[in-house]
Amino acid sequence: MSDNCPMCRRWNDDAELHIEEQEHSYTILNRDQFFPGYTLLFTKQHVTELFHLDRAVRTELMEEVSRVAEALSGVFRPDKINYELLGNMVPHIHWHLVPRFSTESLWPRPIWAEAHIELLLSADQYRERISLIRQALR
Amino acid sequence: MSDNCPMCRRWNDDAELHIEEQEHSYTILNRDQFFPGYTLLFTKQHVTELFHLDRAVRTELMEEVSRVAEALSGVFRPDKINYELLGNMVPHIHWHLVPRFSTESLWPRPIWAEAHIELLLSADQYRERISLIRQALR
Repeated sequence: MSDNCPMCRRWNDDAELHIEEQEHSYTILNRDQFFPGYTLLFTKQHVTELFHLDRAVRTELMEEVSRVAEALSGVFRPDKINYELLGNMVPHIHWHLVPRFSTESLWPRPIWAEAHIELLLSADQYRERISLIRQALR
Repeated sequence: MSDNCPMCRRWNDDAELHIEEQEHSYTILNRDQFFPGYTLLFTKQHVTELFHLDRAVRTELMEEVSRVAEALSGVFRPDKINYELLGNMVPHIHWHLVPRFSTESLWPRPIWAEAHIELLLSADQYRERISLIRQALR
């Protein structure tokens, strides 16, 4: 835990968006669902770069990332998954895992290429989407 | 090899940008050096998603990614490395590994947030930059 790191608090802060806890990471649905299925996977450990992790932890973390990406692919049937580890604003490893569709107006550009208005769901819609992802993870 | 995949041809096409061949990947300097040190790491195998790889290959590939990111960090001393696997346009695994600096006009936004004019280097400048990265990889 690092003071003032919003990612260290995120699992507690966003309880209604929880998808799953794994050994090294937490996975939540991104609150903005402009991109359907947009999911965040972040490390339990406060760590900034992939190469700061122990090798064994890095390997297991990437298995966790890959497993969630595969589940998203199964649920949403996108044309591509985008995997992004940036952290310029919040330097605590968090993966943006984003199903992308060739039918989007933004396709094939990265999700950051154009600003958009956030798409928030109702509490029921969040629950339903999370439940589908959890089923795929089983 | 897949017909018509530019990434399958990239190692042959961009010989003057070669940094290194590893077991599962090729690494080249990105021709556009608007972001200093911007590097591409792509799989030898024509494959689209992380979860399409065998587990052992995925692990070794991510070690290759992490090793190159660490070398870039050592050479360029950025504030953060950005790791992006997109592939919407070219669905053959290629990692954008981008050193990012808090002194950039675009910081802390993703590299795609604003268009920019490509920064091309002279042949000597490419060689020099590549040589620094290769030394860090040793």
